[in-house]
Amino acid sequence: MTVKQELLYEGKAKKIYQTDDEHILYVEYKDSATAFNGEKKAEIEGKGRLNNEISSLIFQMLHEKGINNHFVKRLSETEQLIQKVDIVPLEVVVRNVVAGSMSKRLGIPEGTKLDTPLIEFYYKDDALGDPLITEDHIRILHAATPEQVEEMKQITRQVNEELKQIFSDCHVNLIDFKLEFGIDHENRILLADEISPDTCRLWDKDTNEKLDKDVFRRNLGGLTNAYEEIFKRLGGHKHV
Amino acid sequence: MTVKQELLYEGKAKKIYQTDDEHILYVEYKDSATAFNGEKKAEIEGKGRLNNEISSLIFQMLHEKGINNHFVKRLSETEQLIQKVDIVPLEVVVRNVVAGSMSKRLGIPEGTKLDTPLIEFYYKDDALGDPLITEDHIRILHAATPEQVEEMKQITRQVNEELKQIFSDCHVNLIDFKLEFGIDHENRILLADEISPDTCRLWDKDTNEKLDKDVFRRNLGGLTNAYEEIFKRLGGHKHV
Ligand SMILES: Nc1ncnc2c1ncn2[C@@H]1O[C@H](COP(=O)(O)OP(=O)(O)O)[C@@H](O)[C@H]1O
Ligand SMILES: Nc1ncnc2c1ncn2[C@@H]1O[C@H](COP(=O)(O)OP(=O)(O)O)[C@@H](O)[C@H]1O
Ligand SMILES: [Mg+2]
Ligand SMILES: [Mg+2]
Repeated sequence: MTVKQELLYEGKAKKIYQTDDEHILYVEYKDSATAFNGEKKAEIEGKGRLNNEISSLIFQMLHEKGINNHFVKRLSETEQLIQKVDIVPLEVVVRNVVAGSMSKRLGIPEGTKLDTPLIEFYYKDDALGDPLITEDHIRILHAATPEQVEEMKQITRQVNEELKQIFSDCHVNLIDFKLEFGIDHENRILLADEISPDTCRLWDKDTNEKLDKDVFRRNLGGLTNAYEEIFKRLGGHKHV
Repeated sequence: MTVKQELLYEGKAKKIYQTDDEHILYVEYKDSATAFNGEKKAEIEGKGRLNNEISSLIFQMLHEKGINNHFVKRLSETEQLIQKVDIVPLEVVVRNVVAGSMSKRLGIPEGTKLDTPLIEFYYKDDALGDPLITEDHIRILHAATPEQVEEMKQITRQVNEELKQIFSDCHVNLIDFKLEFGIDHENRILLADEISPDTCRLWDKDTNEKLDKDVFRRNLGGLTNAYEEIFKRLGGHKHV
């Protein structure tokens, strides 16, 4: 049994605790919703549970597809164990369809399909507003080595292919998503953080109904209904 | 003799006219100074003259170093002839030392030397605020082909080496600068637009005194004094 110890850090969506195993962390998903770099905030009952359940399911599926990741074990509705890593200060974004900030930033209509998946890097720094950066900036900032960047891109492409299939099977289009990676104690790159409707854009295949955090960002209705729908379509209730 | 005809377009710094030669344009440098995407504006007597003189000198020097560019001929204190191109909607920025927007954006102190020159691309679109973009975005926006991007990068590196030398000989450090390229009627990439204290950051080697548009952006004193100093150090008055 892995025993929960002191709080290591608290982010916008999760609390991370040490455990008696130095390589394992204990995660508690919170009910907080934030958007626009923390400008918009709310507490939404059930969000922590849904993201913990969905992220656990997805990381488990990725494990089964042979994609290594930090997920160790679901503990409860809102808790899981993960492998401890040093988080690479990059948000790796994949886009299959133009939406959100990319649409605004480049003046390309939301919904425009991309010929090939686009990978973007954002510098994970709340004070700077997580700016878009190039691979040259990554080198200058010492955020990752060029080899690590190549490896993250390769894993990201694989994750995209698997997630597109997983969501397609649920009648959902995977528009875009954000990944985080870390370096484990053996200096290996490991997929980390979470994969949930907080970190993906998910549109119903027929209606384009948004089943993700844009429901919160754009005041489109009940967030937990949307997340519950994703959990249900992923077959969640069978697993828990 | 090339005869000036109707106004083709007016930008923030220059007026461009057709001529009786379909491949040649007539440029008139204006006294307008603008910064922060047009938010800050002023008319500064002598600025048009100085930028026309400096840009003419520099393009002439680049020609002599074997770097093809659009410059044809200085006509008067404020006018020159250039080869007509279809401007590639990219601002190609080279940085030898971190300053300005890069410093703010990435939290790197102004004055930090870069190990190797950094090339950045900005999408030339005033309405979007000229956002930083990656080479993947350039492809998606159809702003240039990957081959054109490679060629622009190669020319840009050459221009940087020549300009660093030219300014070093004037006791000036070349911190960063912006280039624009165009496609000529034979479908060749050609260095275009202007190279002047409006488009370069130029710091005195000993004092780090700013001899460029930051004098205007940051209210550091007389802009024409700074530009006049650059013109003088380039040996300008000998040529005109
Ligand atoms: N496997 C892991 N090891 C260590 N830290 C992790 C791991 N997975 C995620 N984290 C980090 O946990 C922190 C808390 O998560 P979250 O609340 O989502 O933070 P944020 O406010 O940065 O979005 C984040 O800094 C995230 O990068
Ligand atoms: N050789 C050229 N052929 C055609 N257009 C050019 C050439 N060189 C520069 N231009 C364009 O002339 C326009 C006017 O210049 P400027 O006043 O600096 O414009 P801006 O407001 O975009 O900075 C710009 O769009 C610039 O790209
Ligand atoms: Mg997070
Ligand atoms: Mg200009």
